[in-house]
Amino acid sequence: MSEKFACIGAGLIGSSWAMSFARSGHRVALFDDADGAAERALGLIRDRLGVLQSEGLLEDAEHTAALITAADSLEEAVAGASFVQESVFEDVALKQSVYAKLDQAAEPDAVLASSTSAILPDAFLGDIRGRDRAIIAHPANPPYLLPVVELVRSSWTSDDTVARCSAVMESVGQVPVVLKKAIAGFVMNRLQAALIQEAMFLVGEGYVDPEGVDKVVRHSLGLRWSFMGPFEVMDSNAPAGFRDYAARYGPSTIQEIGRSIDALGSMRYRWPQPIIDEIDAWRRSEVPAGKLDHHRRWRDLVLMQLAQVMARARAGKADI
Amino acid sequence: MSEKFACIGAGLIGSSWAMSFARSGHRVALFDDADGAAERALGLIRDRLGVLQSEGLLEDAEHTAALITAADSLEEAVAGASFVQESVFEDVALKQSVYAKLDQAAEPDAVLASSTSAILPDAFLGDIRGRDRAIIAHPANPPYLLPVVELVRSSWTSDDTVARCSAVMESVGQVPVVLKKAIAGFVMNRLQAALIQEAMFLVGEGYVDPEGVDKVVRHSLGLRWSFMGPFEVMDSNAPAGFRDYAARYGPSTIQEIGRSIDALGSMRYRWPQPIIDEIDAWRRSEVPAGKLDHHRRWRDLVLMQLAQVMARARAGKADI
Repeated sequence: MSEKFACIGAGLIGSSWAMSFARSGHRVALFDDADGAAERALGLIRDRLGVLQSEGLLEDAEHTAALITAADSLEEAVAGASFVQESVFEDVALKQSVYAKLDQAAEPDAVLASSTSAILPDAFLGDIRGRDRAIIAHPANPPYLLPVVELVRSSWTSDDTVARCSAVMESVGQVPVVLKKAIAGFVMNRLQAALIQEAMFLVGEGYVDPEGVDKVVRHSLGLRWSFMGPFEVMDSNAPAGFRDYAARYGPSTIQEIGRSIDALGSMRYRWPQPIIDEIDAWRRSEVPAGKLDHHRRWRDLVLMQLAQVMARARAGKADI
Repeated sequence: MSEKFACIGAGLIGSSWAMSFARSGHRVALFDDADGAAERALGLIRDRLGVLQSEGLLEDAEHTAALITAADSLEEAVAGASFVQESVFEDVALKQSVYAKLDQAAEPDAVLASSTSAILPDAFLGDIRGRDRAIIAHPANPPYLLPVVELVRSSWTSDDTVARCSAVMESVGQVPVVLKKAIAGFVMNRLQAALIQEAMFLVGEGYVDPEGVDKVVRHSLGLRWSFMGPFEVMDSNAPAGFRDYAARYGPSTIQEIGRSIDALGSMRYRWPQPIIDEIDAWRRSEVPAGKLDHHRRWRDLVLMQLAQVMARARAGKADI
């Protein structure tokens, strides 16, 4: 059933959301406070939808693009919309003022979802009348290629809002994960930061060069985690499954390394500027500054190819 | 140029090494102290090589299988071998006794490489006369599908041995990463443990369920890390590359979450048994105990398909 969605903020995240919603046949109104930003986003969206079609991931890019329009005001964008996704700059005061406007202008039963990755829900979702319908829906970047969305409720978000937001996300092909309680960084960025902090420590303290870290992750951990996730990997890495893994490797291996990480202080490691410069110099030798946009397009193409492998992989698992 | 390789220990790792070496046209002698273990491994190897061929990753499984033979003794296995890969049980005393024998029996110029993941090199590679030619070559599991190998030198390993071991690994299609100095867990398992400890903390302390963790990793972090690695991902996630990323998100986001992880003590988190049981129960609802082997075969098939995507992805990057 086609509905109207509103996307507030037309940066990379807001534009990607518009594509996700329109890809499922919904009309999308895109609004941005900056003059002309929404119109400019429409051009980028058209370009990216064309790539999706040529990779076999979208039937009709023209039709999908035509579902997305630029709105002249926040009020126009949200009028008649059943779902509002906010993706403005990460600033508490800005978010508070946007939510005050959304609370006034949006349809009374519309879900108000925020893309924030950095702000806890109670910091900006509590001052509006309709705070029961406001929730964080934090995507990976970009959401039209990386489907997972973290749903984080504030102290006032209703169960109904969580259920409706989750249902909407599933209906447009995203993968919602509901957090049971809020924590800084949520799940995605906490897991990412744990690995990155250890990586920076190992490079900064001279155990390995940055290229070595990337090779280790690409050719082992990342390959497995791309289709299984860490618990499924552990489950498959001991003859009798996860409980067996925990008994064999929990205290003796993983927790012992964890204690070493704790003792050496990787998680509070401050990145030394010379190490940042060294890593940047290596990256620029791999991808010159003028080719970074090209590299990002390559990244997105590979993600599209992986999406097809993952779909086949899951289908092939059906007989387990 | 075809050479003879010796694999000491015919478990999953030793058998996988034999496949890696034979796939590149080398003759491999496989020895295991347990009666009949090497012969039994040959059957498994033949089966897996057949799957590689049917997935288009190997030309002639029969020919490759014929290159691998079971040896009746360690001495027979290493006679004439230019490279010895040891993959016996992770026990310091056992490794010490195996290296004493290898030092006597192996050709004088053969590299002696250990698959250990858990033991530091100085703990077992220092007591032999030829300690300059002994090194750790720690693979991911299984090495014939996950190509990265961590090379960790002892205090006595010669530069020539590091260079020769690295060249051999590259020549058989593995991806060697040379550590600049040894650390417990090396790089791979430290990065893995950092993420897993944070995941166990988040599940154990009630922030998210284990399925949510796996979804977050599979549909965002793991997908990107499978072909880029963490530094390349950071480099692509800021307009002007890694230095820009470090300035935007280093102290304010990643290091701030790191300090939160440090303060909350995830790295020293002990896995509660009820949480282990809960995770295991979820896994068994997804893959019944009787289907775990089937699930591992599925995993290996997906890894083979990913290998093909990765090869194409890297080829497509050549024009950057």
